[in-house]
Amino acid sequence: MTSDTPAAAKPARKDPFDLPDVSGLTVGVLGGTGDQGSGLAYRFAKAGQHVVIGSRSAERARAAARELGLGVEGADNEECARRADLVIVAVPWEAHAETLEGLREALTGKLVVDCVNPLGFDKQGAYALRPKEGSAAQQAAGLLPDSRVTAAFHHLSAVLLRDARVEEITTDVMVLGEDRADTDLVQALANRVPGMRGLYAGRLRNAHQVEALTANLISVNRRYRTHAGVRLTDV
Amino acid sequence: MTSDTPAAAKPARKDPFDLPDVSGLTVGVLGGTGDQGSGLAYRFAKAGQHVVIGSRSAERARAAARELGLGVEGADNEECARRADLVIVAVPWEAHAETLEGLREALTGKLVVDCVNPLGFDKQGAYALRPKEGSAAQQAAGLLPDSRVTAAFHHLSAVLLRDARVEEITTDVMVLGEDRADTDLVQALANRVPGMRGLYAGRLRNAHQVEALTANLISVNRRYRTHAGVRLTDV
Repeated sequence: MTSDTPAAAKPARKDPFDLPDVSGLTVGVLGGTGDQGSGLAYRFAKAGQHVVIGSRSAERARAAARELGLGVEGADNEECARRADLVIVAVPWEAHAETLEGLREALTGKLVVDCVNPLGFDKQGAYALRPKEGSAAQQAAGLLPDSRVTAAFHHLSAVLLRDARVEEITTDVMVLGEDRADTDLVQALANRVPGMRGLYAGRLRNAHQVEALTANLISVNRRYRTHAGVRLTDV
Repeated sequence: MTSDTPAAAKPARKDPFDLPDVSGLTVGVLGGTGDQGSGLAYRFAKAGQHVVIGSRSAERARAAARELGLGVEGADNEECARRADLVIVAVPWEAHAETLEGLREALTGKLVVDCVNPLGFDKQGAYALRPKEGSAAQQAAGLLPDSRVTAAFHHLSAVLLRDARVEEITTDVMVLGEDRADTDLVQALANRVPGMRGLYAGRLRNAHQVEALTANLISVNRRYRTHAGVRLTDV
């Protein structure tokens, strides 16, 4: 037997851009009839991913799926969770805890991707809310002890996601999580969308500021009349 | 008397990229002997700005100023504050409150730019601290009721700032504050550095997440072995 590596050699550092193939995964989107959820569903389906959108009402989910086309299916949130390999949580913050509590069993073993931004709004614009668990993602991790919880897709403009004339979503997606195998999968999913790049950006304890930064992007959008996204330089 | 605008016309919306000339302002850097402070001092001086760096010890500030060259001067923090028009706060978070409390009078009427990131570190890397005032910037605003407090320059790599071989700092600087005249001045200062662009990104109540995002950039730097910065797309 021969080997190219001497027995005592240090294992090569894993290339952070070497990510798994996720093209065969079914992507579920809880809250898939909302602006953010349907925008993400559209982009992933357009990239060739099998997508099931979920809603409290299976009827509304199926109607939204028909509108999206591209092979997207609709179901109630529970069936969506059961059928998907990777489940994006895109419900309103107000429904976040209750929705996830009700899906604990259906989400067992699943890769969950929280993209919820807890924000408040008043006359001065948007501001960050501070969940007692630290962040929406940490709340999800607490409510779903048997799921693999990550966080990503916080800073995408629903307007751009849903605009069929927009070919590329030129933005980086910050992916947070505790387990590298899981964050690699989420990064690979982001990379499926032309222009989009998934980058690892820390553990869930650092999710709050990523969620909250959406309030700043709303201020940017208002001042510059745009749909701002984030790119990380030098990566 | 004639006028180009009819009396009842709606005033034209101010161009957010039309910023004041700040080339004549003296820039003070409190904590100017630290990595971040001296890096900023170097870049502003190189751009032609008159810079005074401050330190608890005037002697150390003068030594650091001599090393920087480019007309940079050194002084103790109080003299630095008095001599500058615009004062950047780049002290360690641990010294933040005490330093500013001691400079309340010297900073009266001044434009203060807080760039301090309250972070903790452990074996898993960096994490955001949560000041009871909400953010370092809000703590500064509370301690300096007679100053004009803004926040900016949080995400710059001290390594890149200080590396003379790096010609351009290709990054956006998120500028936060309550008063547009003040944030415009800070944006204009950022624009003086080649590659750098100052963008308005909200009020001080949304400063925490901007400060805290530095913890995520540290995770990015570790994973990708880089010095990551932030760009906002579509602006």
